[in-house]
Amino acid sequence: MPLQNRQIVLRSRPNGEPTVENFELVTTPVPELSAGQVLVRHHFLSLDPYMRGRMNEGKSYAKPQPLGEVMLGAAVGEVVDSKSDFFKPGDKVLGMGGWQEYSIVDSTQRGMLQKVDPKIPLSAYLGSVGMPGVTAWYGLEKIIHPKSGQTIVVSAASSAVGSVLGQLAKFRGCRAVGIAGGAEKCAYVRDELGFDACIDYREHKDVRSLSQALGAAAPSGIDGYFENVGGVILDAVLTRMNAFGRIALCGLIAGYNGEPIPIQYPQLLLASRLTLEAFIVSEHMEVWPEALRELAEAVATGKLKYRETIAEGIASAPSAFLGMLRGKNFGKQVVKVI
Amino acid sequence: MPLQNRQIVLRSRPNGEPTVENFELVTTPVPELSAGQVLVRHHFLSLDPYMRGRMNEGKSYAKPQPLGEVMLGAAVGEVVDSKSDFFKPGDKVLGMGGWQEYSIVDSTQRGMLQKVDPKIPLSAYLGSVGMPGVTAWYGLEKIIHPKSGQTIVVSAASSAVGSVLGQLAKFRGCRAVGIAGGAEKCAYVRDELGFDACIDYREHKDVRSLSQALGAAAPSGIDGYFENVGGVILDAVLTRMNAFGRIALCGLIAGYNGEPIPIQYPQLLLASRLTLEAFIVSEHMEVWPEALRELAEAVATGKLKYRETIAEGIASAPSAFLGMLRGKNFGKQVVKVI
Repeated sequence: MPLQNRQIVLRSRPNGEPTVENFELVTTPVPELSAGQVLVRHHFLSLDPYMRGRMNEGKSYAKPQPLGEVMLGAAVGEVVDSKSDFFKPGDKVLGMGGWQEYSIVDSTQRGMLQKVDPKIPLSAYLGSVGMPGVTAWYGLEKIIHPKSGQTIVVSAASSAVGSVLGQLAKFRGCRAVGIAGGAEKCAYVRDELGFDACIDYREHKDVRSLSQALGAAAPSGIDGYFENVGGVILDAVLTRMNAFGRIALCGLIAGYNGEPIPIQYPQLLLASRLTLEAFIVSEHMEVWPEALRELAEAVATGKLKYRETIAEGIASAPSAFLGMLRGKNFGKQVVKVI
Repeated sequence: MPLQNRQIVLRSRPNGEPTVENFELVTTPVPELSAGQVLVRHHFLSLDPYMRGRMNEGKSYAKPQPLGEVMLGAAVGEVVDSKSDFFKPGDKVLGMGGWQEYSIVDSTQRGMLQKVDPKIPLSAYLGSVGMPGVTAWYGLEKIIHPKSGQTIVVSAASSAVGSVLGQLAKFRGCRAVGIAGGAEKCAYVRDELGFDACIDYREHKDVRSLSQALGAAAPSGIDGYFENVGGVILDAVLTRMNAFGRIALCGLIAGYNGEPIPIQYPQLLLASRLTLEAFIVSEHMEVWPEALRELAEAVATGKLKYRETIAEGIASAPSAFLGMLRGKNFGKQVVKVI
């Protein structure tokens, strides 16, 4: 009997907030390997906010996730069978294996599968030493251009991306201010990640209140902002930006389910002569080697801290994903498959 | 009896749309010149949208216009008396003389007064060969970075800034699309300025309608956008921006009187990975010589076209200014003082 592979496929597209009914767990046999192919047993799957965007149809930067197919995403694991000269059983690897227990990868296509450094925890390649870490690095280095002594603010500060952003800003001599949801996350951002301040946005429901809190946390104003959320948070940050401030626009999770999130007062962009640049890191592969060098070393030496929320078993992926979209995770959300 | 100088001072700050009551015409004697000073008789005063912002109190990029003082602004004229070694009576000059018939300038302060080329019409130094022209040049060259074959859109296309923007884009091999108010302005933009298309925003009151018109006028999408207006126009342009498009944010005249002009769907910034950069040209003096070289030559040779609306006499400045804010002018609004 062939090896069985449990997979999560997208069954339907959400109307507004997604539910577990949008997903389906299926079991399929693993086919025989062809020449050049590698069979990877997944250890950890990555769950990321960008996946929510792909659940919709319509114009976006990423193609929609096709219905009936395995949810796309990064996964780390171990080679268990190989018809490739480049990979052998036992190799620890990172690829875009998706939400399933096994993936078959064509090793002749460059960049589809990468060996990872066994000195670094495998799951870190889905977070601080992976796409989220490089996302933070790119936004800070290539858009915000921080200078020592400046104040850098990041929303979703305890997230996989936000936590790296603030720590990198600290390494560069900046004041790092986070915005996160809840006292526990804020305490973590301040006390464990070493940010200078963190604001609980749940305590500040409107622009005026959040702006006042930002004024206290960033007494010299805000020079750089990394945006993951949008809505009231962005409106409040705009009131505190310094002249020639720079905003890296990475995500707008406040609007992922269709909620209106207008920028209420774009006059502030003009008043402070701001630059706002939106980006997706997969379009800037040229920076990955440099970014990953810094991130891998910082994780290996313990300088760059991170936290993970680990869901157990492939079947837990949909509910863990929905929880992440509601901010129930703490740090990087992964699924431990075995 | 000393020379009398008629001046327009700001008497009060507007609530919402300004009125002529916010201004006052006063007459004061011209004082004796001190060493290094120059007396300039103004020929033309410049009226510009940025002056509306300075009528308000509160945080902006420019200091508020002080109450009771002469309205600040550029003016061109002729030196009629001089205690300076650098200027002599008869010199044609450009300075920040403000809304008055005469100004006294300290010629020892560098950059306060510049001699102009008598081969170029004096009033052009307030428009195409002045701050508005350099504003267009900066936004196009330093923010939009146009490439031949791209599509560049500008709002307020018949204005002093917009008319230069589109023509410069054409010089660089781009498709130029204007947005302007009314059939007459659109015909001028197309037929006299040589834009490829012009959309009358008054015919398209909502985002969907304006977006459709933009789709027809910019069939390959929009690569660069120069924004003078905001509101519905910006929302519609965002629906048509190509990936990695660039937006120069120069003004938001739709919100100058406090009207709400939210950016309704900032998700579009992310979907097309746009860069938006706000600027004021007086903070980039380093580009003025290069910009003015191109603009002066293009005006002198007749390649760069412009139109002026000329109000007669210092007393007409307030009503001409209010008319300009409502789009009643056609091209550059100036006041002819003598």
